[in-house]
Amino acid sequence: MAEERRDGEPDERLREYRSSIDNIDAALVHLLAERFKITQAVGRYKATAGLPPSDPGREREQIARLRALAVESGLDPAFTEAFLRFIVSEVIRHHEAIAEGAD
Amino acid sequence: MAEERRDGEPDERLREYRSSIDNIDAALVHLLAERFKITQAVGRYKATAGLPPSDPGREREQIARLRALAVESGLDPAFTEAFLRFIVSEVIRHHEAIAEGAD
Repeated sequence: MAEERRDGEPDERLREYRSSIDNIDAALVHLLAERFKITQAVGRYKATAGLPPSDPGREREQIARLRALAVESGLDPAFTEAFLRFIVSEVIRHHEAIAEGAD
Repeated sequence: MAEERRDGEPDERLREYRSSIDNIDAALVHLLAERFKITQAVGRYKATAGLPPSDPGREREQIARLRALAVESGLDPAFTEAFLRFIVSEVIRHHEAIAEGAD
C-alpha cells in the first residue's frame, strides 16, 4: 500500500525511495544467506577439529576492521559494531547447535 | 591473528573461510551505508512533508517480503525479520532526530 500525500495522491517520491530500499534489502538478504552458508561450514569444521565455537580475538579484529570501513563509507561505527555483534550472536547459536549435534 | 591448529600450524582452511566472510562483511557495510543514505533522505522528506517517522503498514509489507526472500535463499525467516527490525529501529532513531531538528 503506497503512502498517500495529504491531498490523497500516492506519493511518487516516497515510492521511488522505497523501491531502492527494497532492492538493497534483497541484496542484503542474499549476502546474509551466503555469509551463513560459510559460517555453517566453519561451524562444522570447528566441531570436527575440536575448536571452540566463538573466538574473541577474531571478533575483535572483525569489529576493528568494520568500524574502519564504516567510517570510510559514512556509516555510524557504533551501529556497525552492533550490527556485527547481532550477526555473530546468531552464528554462535548455530555453532553451538552444531557442536551439540543438533544440526 | 590466524587461529592455529593443535599442532601449532596456522589453519589455512579457516583462513580461507574467514577471507570470504570478510569480503561479504565489507559488501554488507557498503550496502548498509547506501541504505542509510536513502533512509536519511526519506527522513528529511517525511519531516518536510509532515509525515510520521514510522509507518507500521510499510514495515509489515517489508517483513512479509523479506521473510519470503529468506525462505528462497535458505536464510532463517525469523532471523531475517529480527535483522530488519534491528535496522528499522536505527532508521526510526535517525528520523526522530531529523524531525526534532537535531540532524
